[in-house]
Formats: sequence, structure tokens, C-alpha cells
Amino acid sequence: MVMPLALMEKTVNKKVSLLLKDNRVLEGKLTGYDEYMNMVLEDTEERNADQVRRLGTVILRGNNVVSISPF
Amino acid sequence: MVMPLALMEKTVNKKVSLLLKDNRVLEGKLTGYDEYMNMVLEDTEERNADQVRRLGTVILRGNNVVSISPF
Amino acid sequence: MVMPLALMEKTVNKKVSLLLKDNRVLEGKLTGYDEYMNMVLEDTEERNADQVRRLGTVILRGNNVVSISPF
Amino acid sequence: MVMPLALMEKTVNKKVSLLLKDNRVLEGKLTGYDEYMNMVLEDTEERNADQVRRLGTVILRGNNVVSISPF
Amino acid sequence: MVMPLALMEKTVNKKVSLLLKDNRVLEGKLTGYDEYMNMVLEDTEERNADQVRRLGTVILRGNNVVSISPF
Amino acid sequence: MVMPLALMEKTVNKKVSLLLKDNRVLEGKLTGYDEYMNMVLEDTEERNADQVRRLGTVILRGNNVVSISPF
Amino acid sequence: MVMPLALMEKTVNKKVSLLLKDNRVLEGKLTGYDEYMNMVLEDTEERNADQVRRLGTVILRGNNVVSISPF
Repeated sequence: MVMPLALMEKTVNKKVSLLLKDNRVLEGKLTGYDEYMNMVLEDTEERNADQVRRLGTVILRGNNVVSISPF
Repeated sequence: MVMPLALMEKTVNKKVSLLLKDNRVLEGKLTGYDEYMNMVLEDTEERNADQVRRLGTVILRGNNVVSISPF
Repeated sequence: MVMPLALMEKTVNKKVSLLLKDNRVLEGKLTGYDEYMNMVLEDTEERNADQVRRLGTVILRGNNVVSISPF
Repeated sequence: MVMPLALMEKTVNKKVSLLLKDNRVLEGKLTGYDEYMNMVLEDTEERNADQVRRLGTVILRGNNVVSISPF
Repeated sequence: MVMPLALMEKTVNKKVSLLLKDNRVLEGKLTGYDEYMNMVLEDTEERNADQVRRLGTVILRGNNVVSISPF
Repeated sequence: MVMPLALMEKTVNKKVSLLLKDNRVLEGKLTGYDEYMNMVLEDTEERNADQVRRLGTVILRGNNVVSISPF
Repeated sequence: MVMPLALMEKTVNKKVSLLLKDNRVLEGKLTGYDEYMNMVLEDTEERNADQVRRLGTVILRGNNVVSISPF
């Protein structure tokens, strides 16, 4: 079995795609997280149908996150 | 009686269909979960009326999940 | 007095109708629950005005449930 | 002073009117409750402007309840 | 300093106006409360622009309350 | 570093502007608060584009507050 | 690994951009925070497409925050 936080641990320093509750999609390198699934992303980009917005380093509150996909 | 988490346990490595609060439907192999019903899915697909989107491995936060149906 | 969880206990293996927060109505046999009112239903059907959708076995998160009516 | 749960206790086996968060109004006999204000109602009716729907016995999750009025 | 619950205590048996999250305004005599700001109101009235609805005694769940104004 | 509750403490008996989740703006003298950021305001006014409504003393539940600005 | 609160700590007295749940964007100097991600900002500005509103010192409740970007 793969515990969710164990997969987070293995994903540190790898690129992830995040879906937020407000339907925004963020991509970036996961550099940290805590037990509430708060996360630190680096080189973060917000991707829309026709747009990329560079956000750099971002601290994300876990309760806004729907899903995390390692690349 | 079948406790909900006991059924989760029995469903590990089997295919499930998930309904999320935002009405998205995900299908994939459940490879892990924790006591908050955070889950790890592999070979995940998001299915709409006329579309399948491949998401690969996904970590899902339990508080966005409405229901889990083992296949 | 009838404690809510005591009535849940008496309802195990009986048919129930559930109202969810998103206004969906599910009917099925309650085969398990826990203290968060997470539930396991079998032979579950989602009923709309003009439609029945068979869902089979379903694990439901309690925080999406408004009310539970034993038949 | 009248503590809210003490008034719940005194209202057991009496008829109540409940307002839910989704604006539905339920009337029925309160036969039980717990410290989360989960409740058991019997002979429950949902009342709209022009309609009465009989629901029989209902287990209600407290976090959907706005207010409880003893008759 | 006036602690919020200390002001609640001083307001027992006095008339209050409550604003709920769904924008309803209730007026009544506060006869009790607990640490979750659940409250008991007596002689409660719901007041709209052009209407008064008598609700009598009401148990209110605190998490639906925005603000409490003693008269 | 300025801890949020330490700044609340220093703001007692001073005028503040509050933004609530429902976008209402309240101004008044902060006379008390607790660790949940429940607050007591005196001489409270609700300010809209073209209107001032006097609310007098108000107990506010912290979970409806977005931000607090000392004047 | 960079823990989210450790990055908050390193960001004290630096300028940040905050995205709130209601889609407002605030910029200011982070002068404090606590474990709930409540924050104190100084020289805060709310930025819209075509507008800057000066808010000065602001205490923000953490549960309204989606993400924090150090400049």
C-alpha cells in the first residue's frame, strides 16, 4: 500500500500538477509539505487554456487543494 | 457489519470510481489511503459524458470526495 | 431516548434512503458505518425524477450526508 | 439560564420544527439527539408552501441544522 | 477588555438581534448559550423588510451566526 | 515579529475596520476578542457605498472575519 | 525539504503577494504569522486590474488564504 503522505515524501523535488478547489491548475517543483498538506512549490506556473502565469515560489494552504499529480 | 475503512482496505489494488464534490468522476486503481480518506490512485482517468482525460498517479484529499465505488 | 448512532446500529442490513448535500438521493442496504457517519451501502441506486442509476457498493463520506431514513 | 442541550433534552418526545441550511423545513417528534446535535425525528414531514412530504423516521446530521423550534 | 463570552453572559435575559449567515435577522430574548455560541432565544421574531414572523422559542446552532447585538 | 493575536491585544480600545466573508465592512471600537478571533465591537457602523447603518455593540464570530485593519 | 511554516519564518519582514479565497490579491510586508497561518501585513495594498487600494496594517485570518508568494 502507498500512503498518501509517503507518496508526497517521494515526490519532494519533483514536478507536480495541482488542482485547486477554485479550478485553478498550478505546476511546479514540490519542495516541501506538512501533515495538513500545506505545500511549498518552486518555479510555479498557473496554466489556463491559453495562458501561462509565472508565480515563482508559492506556499499553498492544503485545504484549497483537490489533487496532486506527480509528473 | 462492514466498516467503511475496512472496505477501503479490501479495495486496495482494485479499481474504483470516485465522485468528487465538484461532480468530477475519477476512475483508477486505489493503491493507498489514510484515516482522513486521502487516497492514492494509479492509472487515473477523469470521465465526462464525451471525454476521457488521463491523469496517471493522483493524490486526492479526502475532504473533496463524496463517494467511492469499488468496481 | 433514541441516540442517532444507536438507530444507525439497528438499521444495519436494512434498506435506507439517503439525502446528500448536493440533493442527490441514494437508496441501498446499509451494511456499515463509523462514528463520522461514513457509511457502506450495497445495491445502491441513485433515484431522480425519471431515472434510476445502479451504483452497486458505495462508501459514502459522512460529511456529505444530510439525512438518513430507514425504510 | 437555559443551556441549548438542556432544552434539547426537555424537548425529547415533543414535536419540533427544524430549519435546515438548504432552507428545507422539517417537522416531527424529536426522539433523540447527541452532543453534535445529530437528531432522530419520527413522523417527520417536510413542509413547503404547497406540499407536505412524509419522511417517517429520519436521522439528521447536526451540521445541516440552522435552528430547532419546539412546538 | 470585554471577552465575547463574558458579554454573552451579561446579555442573558436581555433582547438581542442576531444576523445569520443566510442573512436572516432574528430578534428575541437570549435565555442561554454555550461555548460554541449555540443559543436559546425566546419570543423570537424573524424580521424582513416588510414582514414579522413569530418563531417562539428557538435553539440556534452557533456556526450559523454572524453577529449578536444586545439591544 | 508581530504575532496576529499580539496585534489584536494592542488594538483593544482602538478603532478598527473589519471585512467579513459576506463582503460587509464594519467599523467600530474593538473592546475585546478571544483566541478564536471572536470579537466585541462598540459604536459599530456598517458602511456601504452610500449608506451608514449604526449597529451599536456587536459580538462577532471570528469565522466570519476575513481581515482586521486597525485605524 | 522546505517546510511551509519554515518558509513563512524566512519571509518575515519581506514583501509577499497573497491570494484570498474571494480572489482578492493583497500585497504587503509580512510582519508576523501564527500556526493557523493567520498573518500580519504592513503597507498592504489590494490590487485589481485597474486599481490599487491602500489598506495599511492588516490582520488576516489564515482560513481565507489560498496561497502566499514571497517576492
